[in-house]
Amino acid sequence: MKSLEQMGADARKASKYLAVLDINSRNNALLKVADDIVNNSDYIKKANALDIEEAKKNNMKPSLLDRLTLTDERINGMAEGLRVLAKLDDPIGEITSMKPRPNGLMIGAKTVPLGVVAIIYESRPNVTADAFGLCFKSGNACILRGGSDSINSNVAIVKVITDSLSECGIDTNVISYITDPDRKYVTELMHLNEYVDVIIPRGGAGLIKNVVNNSTVPVIETGTGNCHIYVDEFADIDMAVKVIFNAKTQRIGVCNACESLVIHKDIAKQAIPKIVDALKTKNVLVKGDEYSISCDDRIVPATQEDWGTEYLDYIISVKTVDSIDEAIDHINRYNTGHSESIITKDYDNSRKFLNEIDAACVYVNASTRFTDGFEFGFGAEIGISTQKIHARGPMGLKALTTIKYVIYGDGQIRE
Amino acid sequence: MKSLEQMGADARKASKYLAVLDINSRNNALLKVADDIVNNSDYIKKANALDIEEAKKNNMKPSLLDRLTLTDERINGMAEGLRVLAKLDDPIGEITSMKPRPNGLMIGAKTVPLGVVAIIYESRPNVTADAFGLCFKSGNACILRGGSDSINSNVAIVKVITDSLSECGIDTNVISYITDPDRKYVTELMHLNEYVDVIIPRGGAGLIKNVVNNSTVPVIETGTGNCHIYVDEFADIDMAVKVIFNAKTQRIGVCNACESLVIHKDIAKQAIPKIVDALKTKNVLVKGDEYSISCDDRIVPATQEDWGTEYLDYIISVKTVDSIDEAIDHINRYNTGHSESIITKDYDNSRKFLNEIDAACVYVNASTRFTDGFEFGFGAEIGISTQKIHARGPMGLKALTTIKYVIYGDGQIRE
Repeated sequence: MKSLEQMGADARKASKYLAVLDINSRNNALLKVADDIVNNSDYIKKANALDIEEAKKNNMKPSLLDRLTLTDERINGMAEGLRVLAKLDDPIGEITSMKPRPNGLMIGAKTVPLGVVAIIYESRPNVTADAFGLCFKSGNACILRGGSDSINSNVAIVKVITDSLSECGIDTNVISYITDPDRKYVTELMHLNEYVDVIIPRGGAGLIKNVVNNSTVPVIETGTGNCHIYVDEFADIDMAVKVIFNAKTQRIGVCNACESLVIHKDIAKQAIPKIVDALKTKNVLVKGDEYSISCDDRIVPATQEDWGTEYLDYIISVKTVDSIDEAIDHINRYNTGHSESIITKDYDNSRKFLNEIDAACVYVNASTRFTDGFEFGFGAEIGISTQKIHARGPMGLKALTTIKYVIYGDGQIRE
Repeated sequence: MKSLEQMGADARKASKYLAVLDINSRNNALLKVADDIVNNSDYIKKANALDIEEAKKNNMKPSLLDRLTLTDERINGMAEGLRVLAKLDDPIGEITSMKPRPNGLMIGAKTVPLGVVAIIYESRPNVTADAFGLCFKSGNACILRGGSDSINSNVAIVKVITDSLSECGIDTNVISYITDPDRKYVTELMHLNEYVDVIIPRGGAGLIKNVVNNSTVPVIETGTGNCHIYVDEFADIDMAVKVIFNAKTQRIGVCNACESLVIHKDIAKQAIPKIVDALKTKNVLVKGDEYSISCDDRIVPATQEDWGTEYLDYIISVKTVDSIDEAIDHINRYNTGHSESIITKDYDNSRKFLNEIDAACVYVNASTRFTDGFEFGFGAEIGISTQKIHARGPMGLKALTTIKYVIYGDGQIRE
C-alpha cells in the first residue's frame, strides 16, 4: 500500500481532474462500473467467501454475518444503485444566484464538489460501491476504509471499479482504499488536513465517537439514533399502536428505529396495554417508569440509563409525563438529534412539538422509520447527519457539494 | 466565573428559549442594546482605558494598539451594526420547501438556529458586540472568549448587553463571556460537545490552527488569506496595475489583501516595471523569482517559503509562469482557499480560471479586497470561511442557521 501522504496527494490531484469532468463522462463511467460489477459477481463472491469463512471462525453474530454476505441479489443491488445515480441530475456546476452589486460586480454562487471525501465504515461491503458512486457522481475523489471483517470483499469491489474506470480512461486515483488494517492509518487519515476535505464515519457509536474526538479534518457526524415517539393525551390510540409497532419492530438494527416511548399520563392507562399487546407479538422487552408499570404489569422497571440507550434490539423504554412540556424536555435531553415523532389529534400540540423539538427530523403522526434518503426523495444517501453544521438529516448528493463564489468585474477596486 | 459545564448548560437552555422567541422581541432587544451601548460609552471607554494602559506597559505595536482603542466613533459603529441587524429579514423559521411524497407524507425543510455558538477571538473589542448581534438575531445563544488584551473592554460591553437584555425581560444566558484568561478554559470549551454546536475562531493563524487541531466541537475555519492576482498574457496592463495596487495597499492587515502576484512571462517585461512603479509609491517590498528580477531590478529574490506566506505587510511576492495552467497549479498549491483573481481580456482564460481555481471566491478583473460580507450584500459577517463544509466565503446570518425537517403525516408506517 502506498503511504497515506501519497494517497492523499494523488486523491487531491484526481479531485481537481474530476471536478471539471463533464457529466456525460461521469454518468457513462457509473453505468460501465455497474455492468462490470454484475459481470464480475463470481469474482466478488469468491472474495466475500474468504471474509465469511474468517467471520465464522471468529464466531460472528448471525445478524452481522448476514450483513457481510454478498449474494447475487445484493451484488445486482449495488449495480442498480449506481445506475440510479447515473440518472440523477448533476449536483455540481449550477450557479444558484448571480446578482449585480451597485459597483457593477456580478457575484454568483456556484455548486462545486467538496474535493476529497474520506469515508470510514464497518461491515456491509455494499457501502464500498455506494460511497464511491455518490462521491464520483458529485465530482469528489474518495478515500475509503472499510471494516477489517470485509476487507477481501471491499478490495475486490474496488478492483472491479478501478479496472472499469481505467477502461473508461478515467484517472483511477478518484478512488483509493486503505487496505492495511493497522489502525494507525485511520489516525493518520484523520490528520490529513492538507489533502482531505471532510471525513464521514458510518457505523457504530464507538467508531463515530473515535472520529469525532480525534479528527482534525472536518467531520460530518452520522448515525446514532435514540428516536422517541410521544403519545400525546389527544392521540388516536389505534394510530399510536400501529406507528409504534412499525417504528420499533419493522427493522431493529437501524438508526431510525424507535427506542423510547413517551406517553401522557391521561392516556397511559388506555393506551399502554394496547401498545404492549402489539409489541409482545414480536416479544419486545418493555422497560418503563413506575407509572407505566401501574398501567401494565408486563412492563419491567427501567433505570435512568435506559432513557439514553439506543438498543438496536427488541427492547423499548416507556416514560410517562404530565404534560407535553415535560415530554419535550425529556426528549430534548435524551435524544441524539435524529428523529422524533408525536402522535396527536391536537393542532396546537402538533405545532408546539414541531417547533420545540431539537432534532434533524420531527414528525407528526408518522413512523420515525422514514428518515432515509430514498424515502425523502433524495435518491441515495451517504448517511444521516446528526450534527447541525453543513448537513442535517438524510444526506444525498447535495451534502457532498459546497459553493464557490464566482465574481465578474471590469476593473473594480475597493475605495 | 461559573464552571464551563454550567455555562454550557445555561447557554443550551437559553438557546431553546431564544430559538422560539418572536422576531419583534429579538429586533427590539437589538435596538435597546444599541441605544444602551451609546448611552454607556463613557463606562465602556473607561474600561477600555485600562486595557490600553496595560497594552502600553507591554509595548504593544501601534497598529494593534489602534485596533484595541475604542473611540466614540467606534462605539457608535458597534451600535449602528446592531441597528442594521435589526432591520434585516429574520434568517430563521422559513420552510424552504414543502413537498408531498407518494405516501402522503409532507416533508419540508425549516431554517432553525444552530443552537449554541462559541466564538474565540483576538484584540478588537467591537467583535464582542458584532458577534453577539449576529448570534442573537439568528436565534443562537453565544459563548464568547476574547483576547486577554481587551478583557476589560469586553467585560464592560457584555455587562451593558446583559443589563439591557435583562430590562427587556430576556434570558441573559443568551450571552456568556469567559472572563478567566486561563487557557485551560479555551481547551475545555473546545470539548464541550454536549452544549456547544459550533466553534468559530477569529484571529491569527496560531489561534485558528489551535482550534482546528484540538476542538472536538465542530469548527468553522476562518480567515487566513494568501490571496493571488494572476496577470494573464492577455491582461489590460493599466487595469492590472490599478487592481494590484488596490489589493496590496488599500489595507495591508486584512485577510483579503493580495499577497502574491503570478504573471505570464509574455507580458512580464512590459507589466512588471509599471506594477513595481505603483507599489513603490507605498514602499512595498517586492520579492520575486529570477525571471521577474530580470524584468525589474528593484525586485529582490524570493525563496520557496515566500510562495506560501501571508505577509499582512507592505511586501508582495512575484512568480512568473509560462502558461495559465502553470499559474493555476501554482495558485492551487499555495493558496489558503480564500480569494484569487485573474486580470485578462481573454474569454476562455477567464472561464478556465473561474472553473479550475479552488478557493472560496474567484474573481475576474477585480480586486480581492471585495471578499467581505458587506461588499457581497450579506449585511454583516461573522467571518470568512476558508473551509468547504457548512459555509464558504463571507458568512452572514445564514451561516449561523441549519435546517430541521418537519414532516406532517396521518399515520404513515414504513412497509
